[in-house]
Amino acid sequence: MKPLIIGGTSAQVLAHKVARELKLESTKTEFKKFPDGEKYVRILADVEGKEVVFIQSMYKTPDEYLFEYFLVVDTLKDLGAKKVAGVIPYFSYSRQDDRFKPGEAISFKTVAKLIENVGTDEIITIDLHLHRVEVLSRVFKIPSKNITVMPFLARYVKENLNLEDLIVIGPDEEAEKWAKTVAEELKTDFDILEKERISPTEVVIQPKKLNIRGLNVLIIDDIISTGGTIIKTIEVLKKEGAQRIIVVCAHPLLINNALPKIYDAGAEMVIGTDTIPSQVSVVGSAPAITKVC
Amino acid sequence: MKPLIIGGTSAQVLAHKVARELKLESTKTEFKKFPDGEKYVRILADVEGKEVVFIQSMYKTPDEYLFEYFLVVDTLKDLGAKKVAGVIPYFSYSRQDDRFKPGEAISFKTVAKLIENVGTDEIITIDLHLHRVEVLSRVFKIPSKNITVMPFLARYVKENLNLEDLIVIGPDEEAEKWAKTVAEELKTDFDILEKERISPTEVVIQPKKLNIRGLNVLIIDDIISTGGTIIKTIEVLKKEGAQRIIVVCAHPLLINNALPKIYDAGAEMVIGTDTIPSQVSVVGSAPAITKVC
Amino acid sequence: MKPLIIGGTSAQVLAHKVARELKLESTKTEFKKFPDGEKYVRILADVEGKEVVFIQSMYKTPDEYLFEYFLVVDTLKDLGAKKVAGVIPYFSYSRQDDRFKPGEAISFKTVAKLIENVGTDEIITIDLHLHRVEVLSRVFKIPSKNITVMPFLARYVKENLNLEDLIVIGPDEEAEKWAKTVAEELKTDFDILEKERISPTEVVIQPKKLNIRGLNVLIIDDIISTGGTIIKTIEVLKKEGAQRIIVVCAHPLLINNALPKIYDAGAEMVIGTDTIPSQVSVVGSAPAITKVC
Amino acid sequence: MKPLIIGGTSAQVLAHKVARELKLESTKTEFKKFPDGEKYVRILADVEGKEVVFIQSMYKTPDEYLFEYFLVVDTLKDLGAKKVAGVIPYFSYSRQDDRFKPGEAISFKTVAKLIENVGTDEIITIDLHLHRVEVLSRVFKIPSKNITVMPFLARYVKENLNLEDLIVIGPDEEAEKWAKTVAEELKTDFDILEKERISPTEVVIQPKKLNIRGLNVLIIDDIISTGGTIIKTIEVLKKEGAQRIIVVCAHPLLINNALPKIYDAGAEMVIGTDTIPSQVSVVGSAPAITKVC
Repeated sequence: MKPLIIGGTSAQVLAHKVARELKLESTKTEFKKFPDGEKYVRILADVEGKEVVFIQSMYKTPDEYLFEYFLVVDTLKDLGAKKVAGVIPYFSYSRQDDRFKPGEAISFKTVAKLIENVGTDEIITIDLHLHRVEVLSRVFKIPSKNITVMPFLARYVKENLNLEDLIVIGPDEEAEKWAKTVAEELKTDFDILEKERISPTEVVIQPKKLNIRGLNVLIIDDIISTGGTIIKTIEVLKKEGAQRIIVVCAHPLLINNALPKIYDAGAEMVIGTDTIPSQVSVVGSAPAITKVC
Repeated sequence: MKPLIIGGTSAQVLAHKVARELKLESTKTEFKKFPDGEKYVRILADVEGKEVVFIQSMYKTPDEYLFEYFLVVDTLKDLGAKKVAGVIPYFSYSRQDDRFKPGEAISFKTVAKLIENVGTDEIITIDLHLHRVEVLSRVFKIPSKNITVMPFLARYVKENLNLEDLIVIGPDEEAEKWAKTVAEELKTDFDILEKERISPTEVVIQPKKLNIRGLNVLIIDDIISTGGTIIKTIEVLKKEGAQRIIVVCAHPLLINNALPKIYDAGAEMVIGTDTIPSQVSVVGSAPAITKVC
Repeated sequence: MKPLIIGGTSAQVLAHKVARELKLESTKTEFKKFPDGEKYVRILADVEGKEVVFIQSMYKTPDEYLFEYFLVVDTLKDLGAKKVAGVIPYFSYSRQDDRFKPGEAISFKTVAKLIENVGTDEIITIDLHLHRVEVLSRVFKIPSKNITVMPFLARYVKENLNLEDLIVIGPDEEAEKWAKTVAEELKTDFDILEKERISPTEVVIQPKKLNIRGLNVLIIDDIISTGGTIIKTIEVLKKEGAQRIIVVCAHPLLINNALPKIYDAGAEMVIGTDTIPSQVSVVGSAPAITKVC
Repeated sequence: MKPLIIGGTSAQVLAHKVARELKLESTKTEFKKFPDGEKYVRILADVEGKEVVFIQSMYKTPDEYLFEYFLVVDTLKDLGAKKVAGVIPYFSYSRQDDRFKPGEAISFKTVAKLIENVGTDEIITIDLHLHRVEVLSRVFKIPSKNITVMPFLARYVKENLNLEDLIVIGPDEEAEKWAKTVAEELKTDFDILEKERISPTEVVIQPKKLNIRGLNVLIIDDIISTGGTIIKTIEVLKKEGAQRIIVVCAHPLLINNALPKIYDAGAEMVIGTDTIPSQVSVVGSAPAITKVC
C-alpha cells in the first residue's frame, strides 16, 4: 500500500516532488497563520487506517516548524492514521546534544522526546550531523534512519559541470566520509584539510596528503551556515594553487549573508539541495526520500 | 518553603515583579537566539529538590514562546526540580478547542498535552477565555487554576481616574461576569450590550437594561485583539449618548493597529495589564500571580 | 573604461555574476544592520572619477532596500563618482502610478523622485511592468532603460527541457508581447487567454485563437506574486486538454505560499530568474544586465 | 489657524494625544502594508492651503518609517498643503554624523537631505542626541527645533513616586544637562559619574562630587538602547551605597532584552516616554509637542 505524502509549510514543494516521483497525488492541506501568530492546520484527506509520510524541515524559524510538526502529527494520529513517518530534511537543534555547562537545556533530547510524544512512529533525517551522539538511536527510541543526498550532489556535478583535473576536498576530518562518497561517484581523488601546529604560536592548515596545485576543486560539506569554514577552506586552497573552486553542500542554510561572502572569497559556484529551499537549491532531495518511503 | 521564580523571554520583567512582591530574588537565566533561529536556554541556579514557578506568556510569537516553555520545563525536571508550576499569563490557542471542520487540528488539546508531557506539575492561567470547554480541568489532567486580574484593573481605575456618573459595560453576554466584578469594586452599575432582531433584515444593538445617556462609560473585556468588538461597542455607546469612554482589558493583544483605531472610534483612554507587555500595560498582574504562588 | 560593479544586500550574488561576465572584480562593500534596525554602509574602493553600476532589487522588504539604495548612491556621489547607473532588477511600487482615490500617495512618483534626488545618473530596470504609464521616461527625468530577460528564459527552456508539441500561452493581453518573444525563440506558436461574456451572468475564459488539446504548454508572465492569475490559467488549460504545464516568469515574487499552490493546481515545473533570488531562480539575469553596462 | 495633526504608523496614538491636547480632531488616514511589503498611504482630509503637523518616530524599523515619512510628506505637498512640519519624536541615524573610516555613508546627512527634498518645511525633534554636530541647523537647512521632555519626566517622578533623600545622577558628562534639569524640577542635588585613571591598568568610576551612601537615586539618560551604560551605572551606585534606584529616560529603545537586564542589575523601576511606545512609556510627550505646534 502506498503511503499518503503530506508536506508542512517548510516543505510543501518538496512533498509535491516526492509524491510525483512515487506517482502519487500529494495530499491537500490547509495551513494558515492568524494575525496574532497562531497557526491553523487542517488535513484534507481521509487518513484513517492509512500510512502517512509527513515532511517538515526546520530552517530559519525552527520553533514554528517544530510546533506545526507537533500539531500535524498529533492530528494525524487523532484522525486514525495507522502509522506516521516523519521526514525532517534539515534537522535543527542537533548541536546542543549535551549539557556543556551546568543548567543548560539539552535541546536535541527535548526535541526528540516531543517528536515521539506526539505519536511519530518512525523518523527519517537527511545527512544529519551527529556531533557527540554516535547514532540516531541514542536519541530516538522509535525507529530512525539517516539518509544521504551526497550521491545526488555528485551526480549533478558530473552531469552539469565540465570539470577536468578535479579533486574533492573536505574542510575537516568530519567531512572525510562525504568527500569519499562524492569522489567515488566522480571517479576522482579526495583529501581533507588538516591543521598542524608547527610552533607554539603558529598553525598551518593544508591538504593532508595531496598537492592540489593547478587542480579544480570541489569543496564538500554537510551544512553551510555562516560560511566561515568554507571561506577559510577557499583561502587555503587558493594559497595552495587551486584553479576553479566549486562549493557543494547538502544543507544551504546560508545565514548572515554567507553566500556573497563565499563568492567574495573566490568560489565560482555554490550548489546545494532543497532540504532548505534557497537560490542555490538546484539538486532535489526527493529521489533520496522516495527510496525510503 | 518559598519557590524559585523564573521568567521566560516573554515575561522576564513580570517575573522580576512577582519575585519582588514575594521578597525573593528572581532566578538568573541565560536565553539566546542564534542566527539560525535556534534558541539556547540555561538555568543559573540550583533547582534540585526545589519548587519552581515558571512564568511564560504566549503573545505575538506563540510558537517560539511555547517551544521555549518546553525547553525550560524539561530542563528543570531534568535538573531535579521537585515541582514545576507553569504560569501562563496570556494563553494562546484556546479558541481552537474543537474540530469544527473535518481534519482540523484541535490545537488547544495538543498544546495542553505537550505542556503536560514535558513535566509541568500545575498550570496557572490568567483570565483565560474558555469557549466551548467549561473548565480548565477538561483540557488539563494536571491541577490547574484560572485566576483573574479584573479586581486589579478596577482598583487602578478607582485610584487613578476621577470618573463620576460611571457605568461599566460588557460588549456581550460573555463579558457580563467581568462587568459585574469591576462594577462591584467601583460601587456602580453595570450592563451589557444585546443584539435584538427587530425585523428579518434589521438588528439593533443596545444596552440590555439601562439608559446610559450622559454617563461616563467603562468598557471591560478580557482580550483586545484587532479591536473590532470594542470599536462596535464604542459606536453603539456614542449613539446612546455616552459621555467619556474608557476601555479596560486584561490582555492587550492589540494586533493590526487596533489601538489607534480604538482612539479613532472615540475612546479617551485604553488600559490593560502586563500579561502582554504593551504601551497600555499600566496595571500589573504580579499581585494576582503572587496570591497563588 | 570599464565601470565598477557594486551590489546592495538584495543583489550581492547577482553583482558577482555581472562582474564575472564582464571579467571584472566586483567591488567590496561592508553592509551591517545594527540591533536598533539602523543600516551601515561602507564602500571599500576608490570611486573618485569612476563610473559605477549599483545593482539593488526591491523584493520582500522594499523600503529597506530603497533606503539602502539612497545611502549608497548618495555616498558614491559624495565620494566623487563620476556617474552612477542604478540597476533595479525588480522594481516595486510601480502599481501605484496614479491617484485612484482622493488623497492617495502616488508612490511610483515619490520613489522615482527620491532615486533621482540622491544623484542617480541613469536607471535600468528589468521587465518592469508599466501599468498606466506608457514609457519609463514619463516617470524618470534621468535617462532610463527597461531591458528584458525573456529571451534568456526561452533559451533555458530550449536547452534544458525536452518539450515537443509545445505552445506558449500568456494569461492575458498584457502578456502577449512576452508570449510572442518566447515563442519566437522556441520556434513555436503562442496564444493568450481571453474572457468572453456569453450571457449577462456567464463568462468563458479560453485561448483566443488556438486549440491546445494534447499540447504541452509554457505559461509565461512577468511577475508571479500570489499566483492567482497563474492558477486560474492552469485550470483553464487543463479543462482545454493541455498535457504538461510549465510556468515561466521573470520575477518570482511568490508570496503567500504561491509556489505550492501552483504545483497543487497542476504545474509540473516553475522557472524564474534571479532578479528575485528564490528556489526557482535557475535563470540568470546577469547576461541581460551586462549588455547595457 | 490651528494645524492639522497627522500621525504615521509609528505614532498614531501619540498624534491622537497631541490633537486632543490642542482640542482638535486628529486627521484620518489609511495606511496598509501589502503582502509583497509595499506600503499604501492615503490622507483622508482636505489639506489644500492648510498647515500640517506630521508626527513620525523612527524606532525598530527606521527605514520603513522613514520611507512612509517620505510618502506622506510628498503627498501632502502634492495635495496642496501650505506648510508641513515634521515632528520626529525619536530620530535614528544621528550617530553616523561623520565619515569615521574612508568610504562610509554619513547616514545622518542623507536622511536630513531626503527629509528636506520631499518638502518638509520645518523639523522638530525631541531630545535628539547630537554627537559631533553642535546644532541641528548644521544638518538641516530648513528651520529646526530640538525640544525636551525632561521636565515632564521630572514632574511624573514628583507626582507619582514618594522619594525622599533623593539625588539625580547622570551616567556621564553628556548627561549632565539632563541631570541638572531634572534635579531643578525635583528641588534636589545632582551629580554625574566620572572615570578616573588611578594607575596605568586601573580605572575607577565614581560620582564626581557627592557622597551618595544611603540616598535614593534617580538615574537619567536620553536613550536606553542595549542598557549597557545604565547597568554599569547601577553597579557603581550600588557599590557606593545607594538605596533605591530608579531609571528614567526620554527614549526607551530597549533592544536586546535590555529591560530585564536592568532589573537584574538592581533597578527598582524604569520610566520612559512615548516617543517610543513601550511597556515603560508612562510619560506622555504630547505636552512637549503641543507647545511648539
